[in-house]
Amino acid sequence: MTAGLLVVGSIALDSVATPFGETADAPGGSAVFFSAAGAILHPVQVVGVVGSDYPLGALKALEARGVDLAGVEQMPGESFRWKAKYSYDLSSRETLDTRLGVFAQFRPKLPPKFRDARYLFLGNIDPELQLGVLDQVKSPALVACDTMNYWIHSKRDLLLELLRHIDILLVNDSEARELSGDWNIYRAARWILEHGPRRAVIKQGEHGALLVDRDATFKVPAYPLQEVFDPTGAGDAFAGGFMAYLASTGDLSSANLRRAMVYGAALGSFAVEAFGVQGLAGVALADVRARVRAFKELVHFEVDELAEP
Amino acid sequence: MTAGLLVVGSIALDSVATPFGETADAPGGSAVFFSAAGAILHPVQVVGVVGSDYPLGALKALEARGVDLAGVEQMPGESFRWKAKYSYDLSSRETLDTRLGVFAQFRPKLPPKFRDARYLFLGNIDPELQLGVLDQVKSPALVACDTMNYWIHSKRDLLLELLRHIDILLVNDSEARELSGDWNIYRAARWILEHGPRRAVIKQGEHGALLVDRDATFKVPAYPLQEVFDPTGAGDAFAGGFMAYLASTGDLSSANLRRAMVYGAALGSFAVEAFGVQGLAGVALADVRARVRAFKELVHFEVDELAEP
Repeated sequence: MTAGLLVVGSIALDSVATPFGETADAPGGSAVFFSAAGAILHPVQVVGVVGSDYPLGALKALEARGVDLAGVEQMPGESFRWKAKYSYDLSSRETLDTRLGVFAQFRPKLPPKFRDARYLFLGNIDPELQLGVLDQVKSPALVACDTMNYWIHSKRDLLLELLRHIDILLVNDSEARELSGDWNIYRAARWILEHGPRRAVIKQGEHGALLVDRDATFKVPAYPLQEVFDPTGAGDAFAGGFMAYLASTGDLSSANLRRAMVYGAALGSFAVEAFGVQGLAGVALADVRARVRAFKELVHFEVDELAEP
Repeated sequence: MTAGLLVVGSIALDSVATPFGETADAPGGSAVFFSAAGAILHPVQVVGVVGSDYPLGALKALEARGVDLAGVEQMPGESFRWKAKYSYDLSSRETLDTRLGVFAQFRPKLPPKFRDARYLFLGNIDPELQLGVLDQVKSPALVACDTMNYWIHSKRDLLLELLRHIDILLVNDSEARELSGDWNIYRAARWILEHGPRRAVIKQGEHGALLVDRDATFKVPAYPLQEVFDPTGAGDAFAGGFMAYLASTGDLSSANLRRAMVYGAALGSFAVEAFGVQGLAGVALADVRARVRAFKELVHFEVDELAEP
């Protein structure tokens, strides 16, 4: 029996415009990107909610790849919808519309079989709900958590309470800065470590990601891509690759966490190569491995003994 | 006899304000930062100009560290002055004043002994003058060149001519984008390779630097610093470390160019830890080596054979 990997997060319908095209009501949301990426490495259990209008067929494709949707509740009402437009160079985006729909009433309830999950990822939802999910999981080996600026400002106390109960906070650089009140990203990471988590993972978009613990900092760059079509979901795909690699190996050593960062970066890079979750749909384990080896080549150098000048 | 390393560039008096303090008329300029960093690894020959008001004592400190100032001309008139102010998070800066002074009349003339230089760095000056310097060096083994947006726009034809005669273009990401007209930095690097240089080095500030050739891309991140005082000169210190490492080893293999990138990043990181060239003044070769090893630790991971999920 493999160790259960559980994600709770949004299941959305995304309408995204980039300079290269646009989508309308395409499957998205943190739980969808996480599981589409993670399932390439390890089975994923999903907890989330959709409205009565959600195209469930789209999720069935995930099921075929090893995603267990037993925790996806369908409620009467509209699904969570998100609409955004990216700048010409994809470096920034504007949210045009957010309609929570049934997501506003979401109270995650885990199917009994999900309560044995050993690896838990609390996607970006209300920290109160994240705490509620954590309570329902019996004995997790590793709990990682994402959040966003909205919760940092509106539910700071609950978020700080949550931090005391998780192992890894996995956030964007801007979120780490907002949370800590420090613009230096390495000091911001230290701040996070002082507030509960043993490790901080800081996602830096096109510049990769950092893994920081009390003893060391590890940096994985982003994969060099000459074509990026849609950055949506890259961070969630990163999280999916990171957590699924850890679940698949069952190894929480520092060396393995570094490898997990590289698997995360690899999955994030596949995610941005097409619109929505399409970039992940055709990715096989062998592709991921090849990209991990390419990451090694990207950063590899040998330390020499420099001749005295 | 060691292989000569020559830099031509600006020798300035910088007045810089950051949130942590300010300097007035402190020694700076590309040739000064380059040689202050490079001389830690290898002797550096400097070609440049100063006005009658320049505090030559400041340059004597460089001389004591292995910098040959025989190519520094003193002309009647004012020295090149640059005044700038950084934003609170050091991510951007505003140039408040630029006074070229004698730099406007600068026509680099190499002392005969400098014409045997094997490693040549053409710092950011008018491409016409860069071409003139290149003509005066007899048989360089490696020529690298920097430029800036001003020359990209005002002297594009001469700059393109120069590109056909150099081995490495070493520029900021914004300059690579301006030059190529492509915002994707990897495509911008390819554009550079198609216009002459065999390699492009793209400096990315707090995100490190890229080395791109036709076969591979190498990424070195920036060193994680919890305190940065003054980013001025970091790119020139990077160039100094990069070129001086190559000159000191005499090895132009791809593996050694990667190491040179790391030495460059190490020197760049020392440069930003204090105001002006002060950050480099107390740095010994052993310090640089220790930081190079820290870079290895920063990016190191072992590729595994992932178990099938």
